[in-house]
Amino acid sequence: MRLSKYFLPTLKETPAEARIVSHRLMLRAGMVRQASTGIYSWLPLGLRVLQKIEAIVRDEQVNSGAQEILMPTIQSADLWKESGRYEDYGKEMLRITDRHGREMLYGPTNEEQITDIVRHAIKSYKDLPKNLFQIQWKFRDEIRPRFGVMRGREFLMKDNYSFDLDEAAGRHSYNKMFVAYLRTFARMGLRAIPMAAESGPIGGDLSHEFIVLAATGESEVFYHKDFDRFDAMAGDADYNSDLQPVVDHWTSLYAATDEQHDARKCPVPEADLVTGRGIEVGHVFFFGAKYSKPMGAVVQDADGNTVPLQMGSYGIGVSRLVGAIIEASHDQAGIIWPESVAPYLVGLINLRTDDEGCLKASEGLYAAFLKAGVEVLYDDRAERPGAKFSNMDLIGLPWQVTIGPKGLEKGVAEIKSRASGERTELKLSEVVKHFAHL
Amino acid sequence: MRLSKYFLPTLKETPAEARIVSHRLMLRAGMVRQASTGIYSWLPLGLRVLQKIEAIVRDEQVNSGAQEILMPTIQSADLWKESGRYEDYGKEMLRITDRHGREMLYGPTNEEQITDIVRHAIKSYKDLPKNLFQIQWKFRDEIRPRFGVMRGREFLMKDNYSFDLDEAAGRHSYNKMFVAYLRTFARMGLRAIPMAAESGPIGGDLSHEFIVLAATGESEVFYHKDFDRFDAMAGDADYNSDLQPVVDHWTSLYAATDEQHDARKCPVPEADLVTGRGIEVGHVFFFGAKYSKPMGAVVQDADGNTVPLQMGSYGIGVSRLVGAIIEASHDQAGIIWPESVAPYLVGLINLRTDDEGCLKASEGLYAAFLKAGVEVLYDDRAERPGAKFSNMDLIGLPWQVTIGPKGLEKGVAEIKSRASGERTELKLSEVVKHFAHL
Repeated sequence: MRLSKYFLPTLKETPAEARIVSHRLMLRAGMVRQASTGIYSWLPLGLRVLQKIEAIVRDEQVNSGAQEILMPTIQSADLWKESGRYEDYGKEMLRITDRHGREMLYGPTNEEQITDIVRHAIKSYKDLPKNLFQIQWKFRDEIRPRFGVMRGREFLMKDNYSFDLDEAAGRHSYNKMFVAYLRTFARMGLRAIPMAAESGPIGGDLSHEFIVLAATGESEVFYHKDFDRFDAMAGDADYNSDLQPVVDHWTSLYAATDEQHDARKCPVPEADLVTGRGIEVGHVFFFGAKYSKPMGAVVQDADGNTVPLQMGSYGIGVSRLVGAIIEASHDQAGIIWPESVAPYLVGLINLRTDDEGCLKASEGLYAAFLKAGVEVLYDDRAERPGAKFSNMDLIGLPWQVTIGPKGLEKGVAEIKSRASGERTELKLSEVVKHFAHL
Repeated sequence: MRLSKYFLPTLKETPAEARIVSHRLMLRAGMVRQASTGIYSWLPLGLRVLQKIEAIVRDEQVNSGAQEILMPTIQSADLWKESGRYEDYGKEMLRITDRHGREMLYGPTNEEQITDIVRHAIKSYKDLPKNLFQIQWKFRDEIRPRFGVMRGREFLMKDNYSFDLDEAAGRHSYNKMFVAYLRTFARMGLRAIPMAAESGPIGGDLSHEFIVLAATGESEVFYHKDFDRFDAMAGDADYNSDLQPVVDHWTSLYAATDEQHDARKCPVPEADLVTGRGIEVGHVFFFGAKYSKPMGAVVQDADGNTVPLQMGSYGIGVSRLVGAIIEASHDQAGIIWPESVAPYLVGLINLRTDDEGCLKASEGLYAAFLKAGVEVLYDDRAERPGAKFSNMDLIGLPWQVTIGPKGLEKGVAEIKSRASGERTELKLSEVVKHFAHL
């Protein structure tokens, strides 16, 4: 993409309402624009990141054996009356009356809706297990939306739901998601620590939150320092094997959120306890028959008995992750995207658009990048070098490739790693090859 | 995907409420399930088709130079009061009050929201032209939703918006979309005829509807028989060239919807006029300053004058297309998917799961298909051959590959084209290679 044509409305000044760094940087980098309180439009640069995160989440769901569906955003209130949550949910639920006076709502979560689908479609233990996921917009009418996309009202979430015949099978489904989540966050360059959690309005008695450590995180977390030595789980996973040892490993050390931490009861010696800040990016629940029983989602088991389905539900905050990654990866100059979620791999800078040699070399490189399938954003604008460099640092592409008159004399381009700041030179003829192999 | 594990709740009987063939077939093939009146959940098979259509629409938008963004589903009523459409829109707009008593709505279309984004971001003629598209769910609270996803309340739409300095440039943007639409529908195996149209609540005085011909279409259309000789426009398009000749060509012949056709004034001799039925799948509008003027979306031109942006808007009914393609392509036995949007290219049928040779050959083919990247749905269930064949015909995959004892004796699989019904035999060793090249 040529920057001269790109819709990238970066801001020189940071809007006063942005109180955390990810919100400030997303506004300044032209990634989003607030549409109304806690509701955002995603502009081209931001949407590319959102879509990359979505693709990783989808890929790991499919790898784990989950199947994708898509439920509507607008639900009938009737289902929520069946489960008993319609009154409970309070004002966070956006309630709607349609033209015929029917009570509807914008789904804040989908346990009822999926249970309704499954109770009509699955009748026998032979149809189990099933794990159905979706990536869909949700709405929670937060009383004080803040922190940009980190705590918005309309947000993109991956939610899925597992259905099993008995508790042991349900527990295996839970473990699969536990492992899939470790892999998902690791692929985004995040260190996420699973912490035993309250199950809140979803219900059930087995639940973990996945917390990303970030200096500017929303809440305080406490964890054993040995978590730093854990492998990040981005290798292969065998979802048919017993995953309990992996789950046991990841829950063997103490980790608690502010809400659950009690300094007097903490089993970890002070010297081994790390206090940091964290952001919740995923949450897994196993709640057995909490919804299937009242809603009549039952199957026949092998002996002909009718039993309620054992269910779990699992959520990843897809739009929130965009903010969380920035919180975990930025510096004074701007965002530092991990390659896996970067909107473009390479930022190509032509330092001198008025110089024929620079123009020719830059255009040639740009065409070669496109041909090689390397995602490249090309700053072909007639701007000052300083403005171009600071713009590229702000939007945080992993690699900057700069073409200038001095380098051209030697036949080289300058390569800068956004993360380390390290600069190297590469022969012009080597540049595209180098990045095509990344 | 193995059918034994797939969530594919096909129905033996057709629900009574389904009055058109696409609705009946989508329910019977387990593609969707009604969540509430005019609102559907997309099950795995249906979602795959929806995503393929979405990918083609996106690809042609990007090819034409449009840039993708994503606006929220929930909008503030304030913007609609600025444009003057808040009262006009009537009961089809789903109106919502949030917890703080603010008037919100579920977007039925996005002219106001995009104009708001652009008026803050684009200040100079140098930033033009711009064309921004999104693929997002919309809601129209139809008084009588019907025909399944063809006229649902919550529906997926590609909408985009062009911004230009003057009318001539705006007209070129309109022409680009006109051509992109011809290409988009042709890639889905559809014959879409552009027909001059009323602009309705969107406004403006230049507008075309793209109508797909289908025997069971929702409305009557009248068109010159020579349209049948027009090329389908799936070759390359040069969007930088003058596209007016292409648009002129496609609008040179008479074509009108029921609403606009007047038999007494029709310029086409009766012998040359085809009367058929059609489904609207796309609509393009050029409306100049209708929104930019009241909403203050202005730029400075080269002479320093402040001028309102010239805008067009363009819509494709992405979820509706799933129904439209089925209306245009089915037979008594079920759906006939064009390859470009088929949920899987190949349906692999093991006729005899209890036969060791059949099992081994089928499993081998399945593994080889996956390895070759061929999208395959494998019927590995212990069902009668008749049930397997009729299920494959119902869900309409383009190619059926059947492994049975008789064929195996000769070392062949039977290949059936769903569209023509033609059966051929292929050596087992040739099967995967054959489909990998399609």
